Amino acid sequence: MPIPSQRIAVIGGVAAGPAAAAQAVRSDPKAEVHLFEQGPVISYGACEIPYYVSGQIERVETLVQFDPERFQNQRGARVHVSTMVKEIHPSRNRLVAEGPGQRASEERFDKFIIATGAKPRRLNIDGEESTNVFSVRSLNDAVDIKNFLAAHRVRHALVVGGGYIGAEMAEALVHRQIRVTILDPVGGVLHRYVSGPLQDIVQEHLQKAGVQIRRERAVRFDFDAANHVSAVTTDRGERIGCQLVIVAIGTEPNTCLAKEAGIRLRANGAVDVDDQMRSSLPNVWACGDTVEVRRVVDGKQIYLPLSPTAFRTAHVAGENAARRGRGAPATFAGVVGASTVKVFGLEVARVGIPLEDASDSGFDAFAERVHSWSRVSFYPGARRLHVELVVERSRGRLIGGTVVGEEGAAMRANVLVPLIWREWRVRDIRDLDLVYAPPVAPSIDPLLTAAHRAAQRL
Amino acid sequence: MPIPSQRIAVIGGVAAGPAAAAQAVRSDPKAEVHLFEQGPVISYGACEIPYYVSGQIERVETLVQFDPERFQNQRGARVHVSTMVKEIHPSRNRLVAEGPGQRASEERFDKFIIATGAKPRRLNIDGEESTNVFSVRSLNDAVDIKNFLAAHRVRHALVVGGGYIGAEMAEALVHRQIRVTILDPVGGVLHRYVSGPLQDIVQEHLQKAGVQIRRERAVRFDFDAANHVSAVTTDRGERIGCQLVIVAIGTEPNTCLAKEAGIRLRANGAVDVDDQMRSSLPNVWACGDTVEVRRVVDGKQIYLPLSPTAFRTAHVAGENAARRGRGAPATFAGVVGASTVKVFGLEVARVGIPLEDASDSGFDAFAERVHSWSRVSFYPGARRLHVELVVERSRGRLIGGTVVGEEGAAMRANVLVPLIWREWRVRDIRDLDLVYAPPVAPSIDPLLTAAHRAAQRL
Repeated sequence: MPIPSQRIAVIGGVAAGPAAAAQAVRSDPKAEVHLFEQGPVISYGACEIPYYVSGQIERVETLVQFDPERFQNQRGARVHVSTMVKEIHPSRNRLVAEGPGQRASEERFDKFIIATGAKPRRLNIDGEESTNVFSVRSLNDAVDIKNFLAAHRVRHALVVGGGYIGAEMAEALVHRQIRVTILDPVGGVLHRYVSGPLQDIVQEHLQKAGVQIRRERAVRFDFDAANHVSAVTTDRGERIGCQLVIVAIGTEPNTCLAKEAGIRLRANGAVDVDDQMRSSLPNVWACGDTVEVRRVVDGKQIYLPLSPTAFRTAHVAGENAARRGRGAPATFAGVVGASTVKVFGLEVARVGIPLEDASDSGFDAFAERVHSWSRVSFYPGARRLHVELVVERSRGRLIGGTVVGEEGAAMRANVLVPLIWREWRVRDIRDLDLVYAPPVAPSIDPLLTAAHRAAQRL
Repeated sequence: MPIPSQRIAVIGGVAAGPAAAAQAVRSDPKAEVHLFEQGPVISYGACEIPYYVSGQIERVETLVQFDPERFQNQRGARVHVSTMVKEIHPSRNRLVAEGPGQRASEERFDKFIIATGAKPRRLNIDGEESTNVFSVRSLNDAVDIKNFLAAHRVRHALVVGGGYIGAEMAEALVHRQIRVTILDPVGGVLHRYVSGPLQDIVQEHLQKAGVQIRRERAVRFDFDAANHVSAVTTDRGERIGCQLVIVAIGTEPNTCLAKEAGIRLRANGAVDVDDQMRSSLPNVWACGDTVEVRRVVDGKQIYLPLSPTAFRTAHVAGENAARRGRGAPATFAGVVGASTVKVFGLEVARVGIPLEDASDSGFDAFAERVHSWSRVSFYPGARRLHVELVVERSRGRLIGGTVVGEEGAAMRANVLVPLIWREWRVRDIRDLDLVYAPPVAPSIDPLLTAAHRAAQRL
């Protein structure tokens, strides 16, 4: 067996970890790359969990892209599942791990990639550990929820948190004929995706689909004889009976290991990295949901724990960890900040800077809203399409946008991505020749109508 | 009644004409703007005709945006329907028109806007004037086809020409339970939209939907006792029986009037205009399907007789005709050249320069093709999505693209529009953060996968 050029440890096996490990092997095929995962499974899509819970995806195995053996064979990294990395000591090149049925042991590594992901935020209410209170993060969570639903008659479920996971879980449970109430004290469902008038459209859509939405905070759990949560009391003193609780109030970087190793963290707990994904220690990189990324519009560092960002930061971290001084290091180009969710057939997509954040980012901005159609309005199947463009007043350039509709909304938001990235002015955007055909888009696409109206206001 | 500042004649009332007239009034509210249309109806969508023929749009009135009176009241231009403009003499400010039941009379105008549109190309076969041979251009054509279908039992229809109108008409007729054969000698159906391997996907899709496709040319008609075409003989000597023939072999600028007025035309018959839509005569502008437009990628003038282009050139022509020396004239920004068609549920969209035209435009280019999915592949409802990017080899920039699929194809082609316009390199495109959610797109969008693979080939 040849002597490896270097030994690289990748900690975390869900999405960014495997991508970083694979990239490291590609960049330095002589390196010995080890991937550590505390759970039994690597390389899976946490984003698909709601569709597994709903039953639309039947088998949990479908969510797994690689089993450890196949990953090892095809990607060339050695995989250690059910193995907890207890400590890392980058300065003396040591990693302490505890494998299944083994005692903790120390191993030598030249370099470390932190890909420990995010962890769900907690409510911090007594009883949050009850067996009918779930978060939605790991494959275990998914299996636990589905098993609970199979074993118990759940008539009413409470979803705490109206973010995209909360909304997707609400849809999944309604799909299983369960009544659902969403509790979100801040500003209703998907308030980080839509605001103002478009927010109302989203609320009404979910309500029409049968979801109760309450702008309240959960403050106390009640329990039944089986020690299951049987009711939640809110900050308004309402008591809501339920047989299942989903807690989806956001995630935060899971970076205890990094912190204990003396790696510098940011205020929100993310590993402090540069655009090469280098941490404060010279032989440690980080990626995925453990890091923030630079938003190109305003240069701000934002936390965007989404799969595409995870993969992109993982490639940069993997390549740079493996490189040994040759060529230029890989850099992360930044993000516009694009995200979408589709619930009960409604696509809600946001790109760039929301109007309500614009002044914080130093922009004097306004929003132009257009309520149009996904196709020629009188063509069968046309659906309402709502566009909001956020425009910087002084230069007239596009800095953000939201698109909502049952058809063509998310993909239209994608059109805004390069426009925001390269600082297009709305007066130039209206000159774009976007495609037209009656079954596909109106003759003047709603994006262009919005740009035109925005330009007229300047 | 106030004395008008100027009198402007707009000739042609389908799409560009009304838009130019309305813009002229907006730009100079004191101008007297007259809109002349030879048919009885103005301001209608010719693009929707196939869906009227299919029955998906029931009433022909649905296709009409404005009746003449409402247009006159709301847009401020005077409308003359069923009025043929026989001659214009721009140098002596005269227009000769013949209204319904009137003799031709001469009127004085300061300025002229040519918006006479396009006319269908002819087969030049004896019998092309038969009452069961139709082109698809005017509202009259639409009504005639539908009336013929109501009065006759059409079992088999022949569509001559496999462009987008031919394909859409084939779909419309199949929707009415009629067997359809498309004859296209050049390169199969939609060959101007797709080529190479993607072309096969489109052919197969139409064939699965029951459409016969023959790479043959119609050379002779046979007739029945009622003098209807009853069969078509092809250049291979095949004789195909039919009860209806649609001729859809393209259109050309309808510019006889301009030619006779001494206005300079281009080789294809389009009015020779600059980017302000000015013709060779100082008081004549042209727009819509009578002009060519500049393609920004290579600076070539291309003929793109599509509704969005018609509206944009009309706004420029209307504004510039009406302006009287104040401010800067409007200019047409050019096109990337984006178009789409959706037939039998399949969206086929092309943007920029096709691979086969790249060397003509001075580019050493290659195509990168990716066969992926519209959503996460294992999410219910995911459809195959095919992407072809055309990439200039030396600078690695995107110059064209084609997207084919039953979901999200046309809108993804729209994403390429600004990318081509601003000369993005494929290596930068792969860094875009496009939206992701399992019901909407794969984690790495097919566009990004294609850009990534293209970048690796450079």
